[in-house]
Amino acid sequence: MTVSVTVLTDPRQPVTRREVVVAPGANILKSAHAAAIDITATCGGRGRCTSCRIKFIAGTPPPPTLGDEVQLGTDLVREGYRLACQCHPSEDATVQLAPPLQEEAFQILAASPGAARATGVVIDAGIAKQVVKVEIPHDEHRQTSDLEQLLAAIGREPDDVGPSVLTSLPAALRDDAGQVTVTTFGRRVLAVERGDTSLMKFGLAIDIGTTSVVTTLLELESGEQLAAVSSLNPQAVFGGDLMSRIAFAQFNPGNLRKLTTRILGLLNQHVAEVCREAGVLPKWIYKAVVVGNTCMHHLLLGIDPSYVGLAPYAPVMRQPLVLPARGLSLKIAPEARVCLLPLVAGFVGADAVAVGLATRIYAGAQVRIAVDIGTNGEVLLGSRERLWACSAPAGPAFEGAQIRHGMRGASGAIDRVTIDDDVHVHTIGETDALGICGSGLIDLIAGLLDARVIDPTGLIQVEARDDLPPRLGPRVIMRGEERQFIVLRPGEAGAMREIVLTQDDVRQVQLAKGAIASGVQMLVHVSGVPPADVAELMLAGGFGNYVSIPSAIRIGLIPALPGDRVRYVGNAASLGAQLCLLSEAERARAAEIAGRIEHVSLAAHPDFEQIFVDCMNFPPPR
Amino acid sequence: MTVSVTVLTDPRQPVTRREVVVAPGANILKSAHAAAIDITATCGGRGRCTSCRIKFIAGTPPPPTLGDEVQLGTDLVREGYRLACQCHPSEDATVQLAPPLQEEAFQILAASPGAARATGVVIDAGIAKQVVKVEIPHDEHRQTSDLEQLLAAIGREPDDVGPSVLTSLPAALRDDAGQVTVTTFGRRVLAVERGDTSLMKFGLAIDIGTTSVVTTLLELESGEQLAAVSSLNPQAVFGGDLMSRIAFAQFNPGNLRKLTTRILGLLNQHVAEVCREAGVLPKWIYKAVVVGNTCMHHLLLGIDPSYVGLAPYAPVMRQPLVLPARGLSLKIAPEARVCLLPLVAGFVGADAVAVGLATRIYAGAQVRIAVDIGTNGEVLLGSRERLWACSAPAGPAFEGAQIRHGMRGASGAIDRVTIDDDVHVHTIGETDALGICGSGLIDLIAGLLDARVIDPTGLIQVEARDDLPPRLGPRVIMRGEERQFIVLRPGEAGAMREIVLTQDDVRQVQLAKGAIASGVQMLVHVSGVPPADVAELMLAGGFGNYVSIPSAIRIGLIPALPGDRVRYVGNAASLGAQLCLLSEAERARAAEIAGRIEHVSLAAHPDFEQIFVDCMNFPPPR
Repeated sequence: MTVSVTVLTDPRQPVTRREVVVAPGANILKSAHAAAIDITATCGGRGRCTSCRIKFIAGTPPPPTLGDEVQLGTDLVREGYRLACQCHPSEDATVQLAPPLQEEAFQILAASPGAARATGVVIDAGIAKQVVKVEIPHDEHRQTSDLEQLLAAIGREPDDVGPSVLTSLPAALRDDAGQVTVTTFGRRVLAVERGDTSLMKFGLAIDIGTTSVVTTLLELESGEQLAAVSSLNPQAVFGGDLMSRIAFAQFNPGNLRKLTTRILGLLNQHVAEVCREAGVLPKWIYKAVVVGNTCMHHLLLGIDPSYVGLAPYAPVMRQPLVLPARGLSLKIAPEARVCLLPLVAGFVGADAVAVGLATRIYAGAQVRIAVDIGTNGEVLLGSRERLWACSAPAGPAFEGAQIRHGMRGASGAIDRVTIDDDVHVHTIGETDALGICGSGLIDLIAGLLDARVIDPTGLIQVEARDDLPPRLGPRVIMRGEERQFIVLRPGEAGAMREIVLTQDDVRQVQLAKGAIASGVQMLVHVSGVPPADVAELMLAGGFGNYVSIPSAIRIGLIPALPGDRVRYVGNAASLGAQLCLLSEAERARAAEIAGRIEHVSLAAHPDFEQIFVDCMNFPPPR
Repeated sequence: MTVSVTVLTDPRQPVTRREVVVAPGANILKSAHAAAIDITATCGGRGRCTSCRIKFIAGTPPPPTLGDEVQLGTDLVREGYRLACQCHPSEDATVQLAPPLQEEAFQILAASPGAARATGVVIDAGIAKQVVKVEIPHDEHRQTSDLEQLLAAIGREPDDVGPSVLTSLPAALRDDAGQVTVTTFGRRVLAVERGDTSLMKFGLAIDIGTTSVVTTLLELESGEQLAAVSSLNPQAVFGGDLMSRIAFAQFNPGNLRKLTTRILGLLNQHVAEVCREAGVLPKWIYKAVVVGNTCMHHLLLGIDPSYVGLAPYAPVMRQPLVLPARGLSLKIAPEARVCLLPLVAGFVGADAVAVGLATRIYAGAQVRIAVDIGTNGEVLLGSRERLWACSAPAGPAFEGAQIRHGMRGASGAIDRVTIDDDVHVHTIGETDALGICGSGLIDLIAGLLDARVIDPTGLIQVEARDDLPPRLGPRVIMRGEERQFIVLRPGEAGAMREIVLTQDDVRQVQLAKGAIASGVQMLVHVSGVPPADVAELMLAGGFGNYVSIPSAIRIGLIPALPGDRVRYVGNAASLGAQLCLLSEAERARAAEIAGRIEHVSLAAHPDFEQIFVDCMNFPPPR
């Protein structure tokens, strides 16, 4: 039976009440997506997280599914919550979407300003501006054209000028008595502007992550960072991790187009925002460098990623690309060059190449490791001799997804935890606690390991709770079949509800940290470098820079190197994009690095399974 | 005062009744255009033709303007007709648009089939198809990509492949066990299709005239013409001749975009039609050659033609272009090459180059003349020694515009007239006479010259009508201040109304034929070729091929060469486009010809005025 569901959406959206027709057999999530209502489905609608939860306001909620019970728990189910992806309503109803997070408070680490200066790079973005006087045609007997007059003034060939430059040419030549500014990239004429605009020369570094997108506006002569903006990747509503997103697009050109449109729409929003903030016109942006993993790269270009998600996980292409902005409908100068850095493999993309470039890992005499922690992380290991890389798909657990009371690093998230004889928390924005984010989760588990609330296999020690300090013991409980640790009771740290860590949450963290740790282990193993010879481990990525290094070592996310050999290197992928934006020599180097990287395919390696199982466990107590 | 006008449009349109708000000072034409209602305005809304006439059905028509009186005549004005471009209504009203012509019966001369065969051209369109077996990536340890596997199979570089080919690559490679057909143009890979599609190789020749657009679909191996379609240029509603169209776009980017969108929309309709007719998929069209005058060329590309319409009438660019179809949003293979032939000057465009190519005028030992009669005609004169060209802007009079009872060569148009002791007419489709088209007009005036109804200065001899044969004399009348010749009385040849030739109509024909004749004269004059040495005059263009050669000579449209030295050469511009489509050598030759043509600027030449005045007169009686 077809039923009609009224969806009450986020009040910040233009229409807050929408009718959705749910056909027989369809669930509310799919029906809402078909009606262009965004309901976040981090797990891709597979009943494995709580992001698509809805609350029935009117109408009887259908009987809870197993997914509802496991993910939401009995209390929420009783209050009328259901997972939209599991929910097949049998009568008309009104439902309320889960309230959105305060994304404006979302913690993003921008690459450090003065990137080029810090690394001693000579700035040469490849964009040149030249002010010339063009003789405007004035004699009917002389056979010429505006373009020929321009080319004579700048010494170029007709083929160097794209048709979109021609559209503005006649007015530009005549507006200021023939004085124009000609912008070039190599031989290519990118723009002809009236008068002298030689001081206006800007570029974008764009880092498209599975979860976050960071866009930085730089001045191309000084390398100065003028503005940066960061957002959630809007594709995430169709799947939080790469595999769910590929599954969404797989053999479905309509969904593929949806993903491409979403990311392009966001990039154009970013352009508008950074331009407004810096007082720059979009037409003065002549170059953009884009980094992202292979799937993000393919989706941006509208390339079918179906086979990237199937063994042997081959990308459709790998070489660096330089495209005109008009081809991507990116609203900067139409002929601006959009440079996509090269890819290495299906799950080691341009972001890994950019991390390699920014960390200079390829140039060192000593062996170093770079770990880019993210939903789809990568690990690099090497020196100037050789360079290896593998993917480390942690999934979105460190972003708070698939964690009972997990949340992103937004206002109200518990981001620091210490445990002595009780639990002490810090929240982002120092406001009332709403949930727990990745860095808090790692601190929490590290503390619980030290307090022996969790054993090295990850089991919550309900049976031994009486041996714990008196304020800690009662927090360890068994509810039905489920082991839980009560992080906050209602009222503690301003929490409106109980915030718990479940046994399954611990398993999710084990899977996530196991993915990264086993990536590091595999590269150490394949390269044959003795762990003691690793000179440095660099933590990169937005999340990597909020993690407590001792906690990360305690839970075995990274190997137990002496503290002074581990350091944060910021958002290295974005930094690498900025280097390529400011220097053509660096962009050429990125292609070299991509050619040098030896990809280690984890799943296909015979030793991987054992390494992964070992890495799932936590290190024993000290 | 703002008034509301209900417009009853052509019943074939989806909405036949539209409300238009007419602001104070605005006329109905502009207000209707602003509301996206197409009212044809051949003269560009200057009150110089009758194409925008409307009839008041309800509400009082405003007092007639001088333009209404002159163009429509007293009878129509009394019946409630007005020119929309002159009409400022003072109260709400309902008006009916003039009924459209039966365009399906519109006479268009398609280029003769077997173009390449007739001229002995070796077919080599430059499009190659190759069936290859591509090894699909199957080993995770081997670092490769779909594209690299393809390139290995065909021996090309990554830069040879555009991003739009990549989007379809993964599915194409895997659908037929790696067997794909790769289409190339030079080094460029245009398409990768699954399986063997090597027999599917098509191209388009597109001739964009000021008034008509002709699209021809050819098979690229045999050169066979599979389908052809012809339409009015939909830009004509914004101005019938080039100058009114440039004026519409001048310094008005919105109007420029409107013109560009109109022509692209029509071309995509043409693609759909020829593909349907021939049973060909648009994705199998890999090459298109476009010819058109400079203004049509610029408008197609969205290039501002403002300065093409101002002295010294310089084009924005002149060189040949090769663009991907996706850049023009032309719905054929996205990477198909769209080749625009080169231009010579602001009013001598790619169509003139194509005429030069198709007529082989550049190769002959003897001097020949090619006249392409059209709204914006061109004249070429020369041999293998030298080659001159000039524009001959006849305007749309030969298309029936700005002629009291003029019409296009559609069903019901008088296309042949003979005069002995009375008037005898033939109509297109042999149906009831509705009006008179260009070829009929030329016959009519030739006959009236021989019958001495019109004297060599063009004056209708009302005073001498009593000397005429008894059935002819009464047709020559004076109505008010206006001299007229009654071609048909109501009922004659099925005419529903009187069809007359006015003194002003004769003047319009004098201007049109004067433009062409003076173009020919100027080239003869500038080249210094004695008229007797002209070996041949070739009449080209859709209209040129319907004109009676004796009548054309009689009115002085073309010089009085012996009949066997004048011949029809069909739609030479379209034929030239077809040659370039089928042969890359011919396309290269077109660029050579464009470089050789010496442009003669009429308006700037000191002798032109006298020549033009002389050419306005008709040759004296024989």
